[in-house]
Amino acid sequence: MAATRAELSKTAGKPIHCRAAVARKAGEPLVIEEVIVAPPKSCEVRIKIICTSLCHSDVTFWKLKDFPGCFPRILGHEAFGIVESVGDNVQELKEGDSVIPIFLPDCTECIDCTSKKSNSCSQFQFKVSPWMLRDGTSRFTTVDGETLYHFLSVSSFAEYTVVDIANVTKIDPRVPPNRACLFSCGVSTGVGAALKTASVEQGSTVVIFGLGGIGLAVAEGARICGASRIIGVDINTDKFEIGKQFGVTDFVNSNSYGDKPISQVINEMTNGGADYCFECVGMGTLVQEAYACCRKGWGKTIVVGVDKPGAMLTFKSFDILHLGKTIMGSLFGGLKPKSDIPLLVKRYLDKELELDKFVTHELSFQDINKAFDLLVEGKSLRCVIWMDK
Amino acid sequence: MAATRAELSKTAGKPIHCRAAVARKAGEPLVIEEVIVAPPKSCEVRIKIICTSLCHSDVTFWKLKDFPGCFPRILGHEAFGIVESVGDNVQELKEGDSVIPIFLPDCTECIDCTSKKSNSCSQFQFKVSPWMLRDGTSRFTTVDGETLYHFLSVSSFAEYTVVDIANVTKIDPRVPPNRACLFSCGVSTGVGAALKTASVEQGSTVVIFGLGGIGLAVAEGARICGASRIIGVDINTDKFEIGKQFGVTDFVNSNSYGDKPISQVINEMTNGGADYCFECVGMGTLVQEAYACCRKGWGKTIVVGVDKPGAMLTFKSFDILHLGKTIMGSLFGGLKPKSDIPLLVKRYLDKELELDKFVTHELSFQDINKAFDLLVEGKSLRCVIWMDK
Repeated sequence: MAATRAELSKTAGKPIHCRAAVARKAGEPLVIEEVIVAPPKSCEVRIKIICTSLCHSDVTFWKLKDFPGCFPRILGHEAFGIVESVGDNVQELKEGDSVIPIFLPDCTECIDCTSKKSNSCSQFQFKVSPWMLRDGTSRFTTVDGETLYHFLSVSSFAEYTVVDIANVTKIDPRVPPNRACLFSCGVSTGVGAALKTASVEQGSTVVIFGLGGIGLAVAEGARICGASRIIGVDINTDKFEIGKQFGVTDFVNSNSYGDKPISQVINEMTNGGADYCFECVGMGTLVQEAYACCRKGWGKTIVVGVDKPGAMLTFKSFDILHLGKTIMGSLFGGLKPKSDIPLLVKRYLDKELELDKFVTHELSFQDINKAFDLLVEGKSLRCVIWMDK
Repeated sequence: MAATRAELSKTAGKPIHCRAAVARKAGEPLVIEEVIVAPPKSCEVRIKIICTSLCHSDVTFWKLKDFPGCFPRILGHEAFGIVESVGDNVQELKEGDSVIPIFLPDCTECIDCTSKKSNSCSQFQFKVSPWMLRDGTSRFTTVDGETLYHFLSVSSFAEYTVVDIANVTKIDPRVPPNRACLFSCGVSTGVGAALKTASVEQGSTVVIFGLGGIGLAVAEGARICGASRIIGVDINTDKFEIGKQFGVTDFVNSNSYGDKPISQVINEMTNGGADYCFECVGMGTLVQEAYACCRKGWGKTIVVGVDKPGAMLTFKSFDILHLGKTIMGSLFGGLKPKSDIPLLVKRYLDKELELDKFVTHELSFQDINKAFDLLVEGKSLRCVIWMDK
């Protein structure tokens, strides 16, 4: 698998010329170009990307004309790679380590990172910046000296990338690369939302709004937790057949009920509401529907989908006070990158967490734009892109 | 204490003529009149009220001109009494039992009442009805045959009242009447919000918006849980001296900071927010302030105050997804009347839960209107009204 340690060390300390898929204009095909990747600075590592997979957030930012969209940029944030070299003050990682970059920082030192209750690092607050975490500059330039923007502290659509150590997690090398990359974002987010944020109880009823990669990962998490009924809501009926592999037991096509609210359909199906409702689309109206079909007395509504900037969520004060329901959000599944990902990896190695079914397509790097087409058309769940193939 | 069993049984099965304080017009003094209390029907008990205390909800409904305000009505819902007689199909209570009426039904049989997670009875859903729970009629008439409305299934401003068994909880007779009545509503609501709904952790920081009876009961609950810092927010500076007795460590006068949001004041005081924020006033803007000064990563915002009918609560979708905070409501402190109240009573008998400090005034029944004045003027926390004095 990829470079040996001896090969890696040859490039340490020097700029690396390699290929990257550069997003030059909003919504236009990525351009595979030669770029120069600077050596890692203090507290950074340079990673040789082995494979990367495509997540909806890549597509969202690829389409985004205005800030925080910005161009030219190297997108990509789900990946597996090998540490090529390390900068100063890096103790926890060394050349040759198998790693996954994770967009959510985990400094391991602040009050949040040392608390079991939080995954919201206080030293490096998560934000969608086009720069490196600590010094606010880029490690990427074109051969003509043009600066390229970073994405989500990862930028994995390149043969090499530089990532802050707060954004890198070691991963057991027994995990194949095209499964390891899934832990980087979407699958962990969905599985974690069920396992960690919601702590789905055995025998419970779960509703999932939106059966994309993250919604199906919530289903996988709920299945692992022993949910007895998993109701998937989507407008694409193909999703039901796919969903069955992930433990979805019932399907509700939200276009099939005319003016009847989906919450009412689900309240009738469940005799008063589900124990857990996950919103994985990112639409305020769906969060309200999720809340409305959440069981009074104990139901939890978990917001997983990313809504538009500035979007608001409104609830009746009377309902919040009287109905005994809880509203919570789940960023990266509530998981702490460096301590919780190894636990998820163990579940995978123990054959409890099933990952194969998420990977519907595999492509070579030169075909990366096909991966975008497949995801936009709703044909793929996860498409793995191999850098060396 | 009050009637012996032999005395009680003389009246069983017959209408009882006694005194009641009748609210005849919105906001006008109650009128002490002779009323007729019918015998209890199936699944009901008639209770000789020993003492009753005044809660803000009594005042709210006393002032309310339009429905759900209605007149003539017997208000009152915090009380202690002795069962005078029981209707058919009553097994769990008998004449002479010490009881407290509780507005929140607990049928002990439905899916919610048998679940540890809910206090939201499905057989008898809580609503502010002017009638008896099961047959939708009144047990009160005047000597001229005029029907009097019930209040919150209790109507304790009368020497005798009829209550459904779903709204009656037995209480250890070792608890003095003027302490027992406090478990009926406000004190349980506040203490339960901290102990049960929020499960306040030892050493944590708590903010309470509104230091009335319920807010101070939250402080008492937080004190019992071992909170190390309890910040009280109110516009009445007298509340700080009073609050100290309940464990309040810091006071914020929300009128003292001009345009600076109180959430910002508290975020600065707590270096990033409190672990638990309780809103005990019933104002949407304060719920939003509470949410804004709740610690990212793990903070909980607990809605305890009752807002106006139709009021809405609005949050930024981004905040809910990214900040890891939870929003929940607490009706009757999340307590199950028949199973959790005995646990609170045990804490009182064990001298862990302190109740004496809640009772600032005691009056005789004929002076009940003074109790209203004291509460409206913010001079009393709990005023106990003795029926026989």
